[in-house]
Amino acid sequence: MSLLVTGTVAVDTVTTPFGVSEECVGGSAVFFSLAASLFTKVRLVGVIGEDYPFEIIEIFGKKPIDTSGLESRRGSKTFRWKGSYTGDMNEAVTELTELNVLLEAPPAVPQTFQDSEFVFLANTDPAIQNGFVDQLKSAKFVVADTMNLWLDNARGELERLLGRIDMLVLNDAEARCLSGHSNLMLAAEKIFDYGPKYAVIKKGEHGSILCSKDGDVFAMPAFPTRDVVDPTGAGDSFAGGMLGYIAGKGKADFAALRQAVVMGTACASFTVEGFSINSISKVTPEMIQERVKKLKDVTQW
Amino acid sequence: MSLLVTGTVAVDTVTTPFGVSEECVGGSAVFFSLAASLFTKVRLVGVIGEDYPFEIIEIFGKKPIDTSGLESRRGSKTFRWKGSYTGDMNEAVTELTELNVLLEAPPAVPQTFQDSEFVFLANTDPAIQNGFVDQLKSAKFVVADTMNLWLDNARGELERLLGRIDMLVLNDAEARCLSGHSNLMLAAEKIFDYGPKYAVIKKGEHGSILCSKDGDVFAMPAFPTRDVVDPTGAGDSFAGGMLGYIAGKGKADFAALRQAVVMGTACASFTVEGFSINSISKVTPEMIQERVKKLKDVTQW
Repeated sequence: MSLLVTGTVAVDTVTTPFGVSEECVGGSAVFFSLAASLFTKVRLVGVIGEDYPFEIIEIFGKKPIDTSGLESRRGSKTFRWKGSYTGDMNEAVTELTELNVLLEAPPAVPQTFQDSEFVFLANTDPAIQNGFVDQLKSAKFVVADTMNLWLDNARGELERLLGRIDMLVLNDAEARCLSGHSNLMLAAEKIFDYGPKYAVIKKGEHGSILCSKDGDVFAMPAFPTRDVVDPTGAGDSFAGGMLGYIAGKGKADFAALRQAVVMGTACASFTVEGFSINSISKVTPEMIQERVKKLKDVTQW
Repeated sequence: MSLLVTGTVAVDTVTTPFGVSEECVGGSAVFFSLAASLFTKVRLVGVIGEDYPFEIIEIFGKKPIDTSGLESRRGSKTFRWKGSYTGDMNEAVTELTELNVLLEAPPAVPQTFQDSEFVFLANTDPAIQNGFVDQLKSAKFVVADTMNLWLDNARGELERLLGRIDMLVLNDAEARCLSGHSNLMLAAEKIFDYGPKYAVIKKGEHGSILCSKDGDVFAMPAFPTRDVVDPTGAGDSFAGGMLGYIAGKGKADFAALRQAVVMGTACASFTVEGFSINSISKVTPEMIQERVKKLKDVTQW
């Protein structure tokens, strides 16, 4: 079934212990789309400024990513993010954020995308995420990501959003902050009180936990790799692999979501192996299958 | 095959968000033995002072734990530890340590224990751990735990110990400190350079990773539970479940160790559900089987 993503298309500058990647391809919608397109067609909704220095066609190549929802806005400047990672690289330190075009009106969902059934709303102001939900009347399974900033600054809009989505994806620190619970099982239960039926709590190098309102739990370690170069985009490609898989299957029950988490884990494990999109953009469905086989060996008993 | 543990028998005072447990049963050898005895017979080597306020028979009941290596030393005082946990309870804050009898000569390994084949050396001064290795000439599989203190203060003795053991068990912060690598796969490789064939890196609520010198890796999440009351002893009962299982099976190849990590995970998940030994001491082999079944449901795909 059709899969739509709304999110950023950005220019990143990233420093890790392995080097600096200046003015490189970034953005949640880009990482998500590259991963999801390994499983199904993707519709991308986003906005860039006229200064955007890359050719979209060169980023996505022949992958099944429909960019007719990507608006290039004259007179505007592209969103830029500068950050760094140290030590275990589990958390980015943001050094500079130039919101630029993100401070303007959000992009519209093209008419041809309005029948989308699976939807991923990457992290942004929950008021904007609510605006997208308004436009996507055919949506059957809506997933949103969020971050601490909105817990503090837009709690009302965020709670309204939570009442309208099927699944929330967030990291463990955010789950604790949103719920007020240190214990992640209690945090998930609190999230369900707000509306979603499912929650995926991302824990970086420690993997992720999928929980359902019905009490189902699935814990998945990250792929243990010695080759972590740049974690930027890992969370968005995790979500991309996950949503790409369930949209491809056309169903989102707990059994499908369990497999979807595995696919997301495989995608994220590629993303971290290179700066920017260098690694994830070269991945093929065959490489995913091979990594899933390795994940089986590493996690099954 | 025979399993011997050397470690502490302590009096703990523990504060968690769920309350205070004053002057309660503690010690690495106690938690280890309670868990290991669910799978096999255990021989305990340790030392207490004449002030030890509990009856050993009441702690271990009819479990197959041979305490003839537990020395009660006249004129000495028992080791005491006071600590607290806050937030996600992943790390204890030590408030007071009274080493007492631990500053004296270590207990001797009784003649009747000297044919032990599986050995666990709980965390202590590596010079003392080396002394135990000297006495255990029949040992076929020796596992040691350690902590950051010894990395700083007894590096030489620790490196000598690493050259004499088969497996090192330590937490992720310690693995990073010992190896100088943030990446846990690289940390494990560095540990293998010192001698051990296997390493188990414990990550608290995030589970554990078992690695072999041959490149095998097994990642196991912790049991996702809402009932974390007191993490004290979780690491030692994890090791107890693990070693109890392989000593019971009489083999320690990677396939057996994989299952052993699952058993350790099950034991630790019970320990954290109560203060002190309240939960782990009531566990039966049937309860372990039931929890392993749940772990299968939570981790397998």
